[in-house]
Amino acid sequence: MKILLIGAHGTIGSAIDRELSPRHEIVRIGRKSGDFQVDISDSASIRQLFEQTGRFDALICAAGNVSFVPLMEMSEKDFALGLQDKLMGQVNLLLIGREFANDGASFTFTSGVISREPIRTGSSAALVNAALDGFVKAAAIELPRGLRVNSVSPTVLEEAMEHYAPYFRGFKPVAGADVALAYAKSVEGLHTGQTYPVG
Amino acid sequence: MKILLIGAHGTIGSAIDRELSPRHEIVRIGRKSGDFQVDISDSASIRQLFEQTGRFDALICAAGNVSFVPLMEMSEKDFALGLQDKLMGQVNLLLIGREFANDGASFTFTSGVISREPIRTGSSAALVNAALDGFVKAAAIELPRGLRVNSVSPTVLEEAMEHYAPYFRGFKPVAGADVALAYAKSVEGLHTGQTYPVG
Repeated sequence: MKILLIGAHGTIGSAIDRELSPRHEIVRIGRKSGDFQVDISDSASIRQLFEQTGRFDALICAAGNVSFVPLMEMSEKDFALGLQDKLMGQVNLLLIGREFANDGASFTFTSGVISREPIRTGSSAALVNAALDGFVKAAAIELPRGLRVNSVSPTVLEEAMEHYAPYFRGFKPVAGADVALAYAKSVEGLHTGQTYPVG
Repeated sequence: MKILLIGAHGTIGSAIDRELSPRHEIVRIGRKSGDFQVDISDSASIRQLFEQTGRFDALICAAGNVSFVPLMEMSEKDFALGLQDKLMGQVNLLLIGREFANDGASFTFTSGVISREPIRTGSSAALVNAALDGFVKAAAIELPRGLRVNSVSPTVLEEAMEHYAPYFRGFKPVAGADVALAYAKSVEGLHTGQTYPVG
């Protein structure tokens, strides 16, 4: 399969790369690195990406930004980043990418644990992650040509605990390699409309 | 209690009014009708509303617009209404309204069944409803002064079946009066961070 991997050089992306590259052709995409670049918050940039990559069999997005701010300091503006980047960025990868997707191609997006187990400063992340899982469930039933869409909702990663431990006290971190398995299940299996919680 | 009821003249709103008005002071708010008016998609209009109503003990929002469009015809623009109106409209009612909320006041928002059981043309509604339920769960843990926030997620209403039946084949509709009970549970109980599915 030809797999577009967005966020290829991040913690999750590089684990996905290690899991899938022995069996598939991986096109590595980053904001500033990789074979191609994309800013997922910009639909023109997304369209330009697909015009460069051409048709594909699977798209994985392991990228997306959201603001972490204490709720009592938040205003409407603090929600804009998550809505435009992590949420609509991934929605737009499907809305635009479907034109370039081969029959039976899959889209696999990344949400996250914070919508299941909220943390301090996580109200925008919870909103966005839940929205993505809801979108995936609904979009799946309307996709034609055997196209599929799923999301992976990982807890905090072992590899990220050095920086994120203070925000995730009591959370049992999971290895990137284990998170990567959920993406393989989505890409190489036949599920659609599913959210895979990991951890 | 002094309860601000937004969407007071809608199908759900009027059922809530019947349930709560025998026991509480209801301030009826609509887009164009009621004691006061608000456009929840506009944060300036929301602030103006609270400056008119003054302090309150409970806020219920039974309003919010979202686009219903077949997924394969949707572009980014079709998601904008739901994000700005039903989603951020209700989020902003909390972000702005908390300044006017008495200690222990509650916010009760409306999501809906489509995130649990998606329907054709419902991908924006599913995204928005799931986002609201996720936001409520996370915001609840950061609210000070005993403030609470919950959402009610009703299925299609009996009173709406005349218009909506073709979209909800096989769904068992629920009476508005039964949906109203969930709002009473949120307002008059002590839960927070909960989503009440009805039907």
